[in-house]
Amino acid sequence: MLIENIQKLIDIGIALSSIHNLDKLLDLILSTAQTLTNADSGSIYLVEKDKLIFKASRSNTYFTRWGEEKTKKIFKNFEMPVTKNSIAGYVALTLQPLNIPDVRKIPSECEYHYNPTLDKKYNYETISMLVTPLLNNNNKIIGVLQLINSIQENKIVPFTEEHQKITLYFSSQAAVAIQNAKLTDELKNAHLDTILRLASATEIRDKETANHLKRVSHYSRIIAKNLGFSKEDVELIFLASPMHDIGKVGIPDSILLKPGKLTPEERKIMEKHTIIGAIILKDSPVEILVKSRIISLTHHEKFDGTGYPRGLKGKEIPIEGRIIAVADVYDALSSKRYYKDAFPEEKVIKILQENRGTHFDPEILDVFLKNMNEVKIIRETYIDKEEDFDKFSNFDKIDFSKLI
Amino acid sequence: MLIENIQKLIDIGIALSSIHNLDKLLDLILSTAQTLTNADSGSIYLVEKDKLIFKASRSNTYFTRWGEEKTKKIFKNFEMPVTKNSIAGYVALTLQPLNIPDVRKIPSECEYHYNPTLDKKYNYETISMLVTPLLNNNNKIIGVLQLINSIQENKIVPFTEEHQKITLYFSSQAAVAIQNAKLTDELKNAHLDTILRLASATEIRDKETANHLKRVSHYSRIIAKNLGFSKEDVELIFLASPMHDIGKVGIPDSILLKPGKLTPEERKIMEKHTIIGAIILKDSPVEILVKSRIISLTHHEKFDGTGYPRGLKGKEIPIEGRIIAVADVYDALSSKRYYKDAFPEEKVIKILQENRGTHFDPEILDVFLKNMNEVKIIRETYIDKEEDFDKFSNFDKIDFSKLI
Repeated sequence: MLIENIQKLIDIGIALSSIHNLDKLLDLILSTAQTLTNADSGSIYLVEKDKLIFKASRSNTYFTRWGEEKTKKIFKNFEMPVTKNSIAGYVALTLQPLNIPDVRKIPSECEYHYNPTLDKKYNYETISMLVTPLLNNNNKIIGVLQLINSIQENKIVPFTEEHQKITLYFSSQAAVAIQNAKLTDELKNAHLDTILRLASATEIRDKETANHLKRVSHYSRIIAKNLGFSKEDVELIFLASPMHDIGKVGIPDSILLKPGKLTPEERKIMEKHTIIGAIILKDSPVEILVKSRIISLTHHEKFDGTGYPRGLKGKEIPIEGRIIAVADVYDALSSKRYYKDAFPEEKVIKILQENRGTHFDPEILDVFLKNMNEVKIIRETYIDKEEDFDKFSNFDKIDFSKLI
Repeated sequence: MLIENIQKLIDIGIALSSIHNLDKLLDLILSTAQTLTNADSGSIYLVEKDKLIFKASRSNTYFTRWGEEKTKKIFKNFEMPVTKNSIAGYVALTLQPLNIPDVRKIPSECEYHYNPTLDKKYNYETISMLVTPLLNNNNKIIGVLQLINSIQENKIVPFTEEHQKITLYFSSQAAVAIQNAKLTDELKNAHLDTILRLASATEIRDKETANHLKRVSHYSRIIAKNLGFSKEDVELIFLASPMHDIGKVGIPDSILLKPGKLTPEERKIMEKHTIIGAIILKDSPVEILVKSRIISLTHHEKFDGTGYPRGLKGKEIPIEGRIIAVADVYDALSSKRYYKDAFPEEKVIKILQENRGTHFDPEILDVFLKNMNEVKIIRETYIDKEEDFDKFSNFDKIDFSKLI
């Protein structure tokens, strides 16, 4: 292998290892592979169970013709079984690279065949191909890298021996980086699963339904997005808001589930749910839970300072608390509760408007009302059904075999 | 740089990227660096806040003299401030490598000095040193790699230019791998934090104390360890067991907190906590929560088939359920409850023995009783205090400023 190529590979390895977002990583892998081999196009398949999933593609020809965004939309995720019929499948099964000078000349008795459907559909001519297995450190196949049409002096030429060597090395680096990015994804998803169970476990004895939590989350996201929050912060408030009432686990049933009006003493105890939530979520290193704690403690504060537990006023109330206040009250008014029907739309909006600047931050309320179209879609998507109000009433019908 | 060294580095990069355990990774980094430079010894410092923390070391001389384990015990974690006085501190601040042919000849007017304390204490002579900064992809210092005494024909010689070049490349690879391993650790710890909050949130309205959950966890670990579970499985049951009563969030206060005996109807509802827990934890991709689900559903089954909810018998009951059954009942008998004092030791053991083979798996009970010394240490470490029974009674004394 050429010494400058080897030196390049060290830097590439470091660059790949630094990317934990799978989509970005696959894109960098493809663009790097294109550069190393002068390939016009390339794509990556990842192995999931017994399938090859088409995950990423780049193509100079298509990018010039349609632009990057449109090309990626056209070549969406698709999947195929891992069999020796297809070129990618053959490589995934044999774990050996294929360097095909001209796919049109693959003999018909060959186990694998080139499928020209997409070429015909999109007016592209695939000639040379270099396809390598993406093997992890234990030599297990995790995907296939497919490079198409090496270009030299504006002509399509076969991939060289040097191309094949460097791509094989590069594929090992790419495979371990992909595996790490997937591990990071798995860890994050596992954590999210636990966070949502935390919300749902505490929702069980509450009067609210699971859909209430989902709706409040979505309404908060709509507000945050339209207030100009960054993509990350929008996601953060979306994930943090289902825990806003987590402190209700500490409130006695006699108060939490009381059908009528609470006495002043009972109300005082009920209001502690904001503080109990903050105690449960105290000192967490988890960003989502830190936000949940702020929301728990402040979602019952009012803009004019008459809320609880601290009577904070105006912008003293953290913005997350001001957002959830609007989302939570809107949901209480606009959806059915076991003790009341949903209010009609005009009545809900009238009540919200009447509390503009007293209960609600006027700016946040305005943003919310301006986006009622989005809000309504959420309300209808996560509408409560009759059985949602009858939690755990069907224990005796449970199929145990599915629980273990 | 020599071509064979460059090629080696590609493989090294892949190997480093595949290790997510920080201690194992640091050890591999050191042994690889020793091989690349013929160094007799080496150590790694990681930067944490404004300190350099000594994290790992290897030394052929010491390993020969004391063995690997003893050496690593002697050179335990220690820390020092990042200042230009020390060699590692100098490298961390200037971000430049130092290749020192002979530390005894460092001029006294030099900003950094060699500290010979450890050499004198352990009869070692440091002469040549090669110290490189571990810089991440954004050129931020995350640690320092220190190599000592390059050996050639049994003599200590200075590190060469080639050693310096390859170690610098290698240091970049090592830094990104260290950063990734730390990220994985952080993600795992964040997740554990959430899992423990899930347990503690649901424990709030239960009659049990937080220490009850800790004790049951530890007792289960003792049993699993002595049953010969793998290290991973022991840890898994330790982390999964605090959720055994999570389903109690779904039981009404009137039953959950009833002081006297339950009626048969109330008991039937109370027993549903096993199923509610399994529902809350259903279909989780998280290994710990999968185990928690099994434990929730089966920790009230009895060995003779008279338990609930399914009346499973003998080995039909998953082993985790049989373990927690012993740990949970032992804890109920041996610790104070708000309605009863702790039973004396002999009485507790007598009751357990009487239920050997009926309530409890005899093998598991025997293992537990054989390890009462360990059990007692746990019981005393996590003993309940008076205030533990008075949950959230001190709301009004809470310092709000610490909650937000």
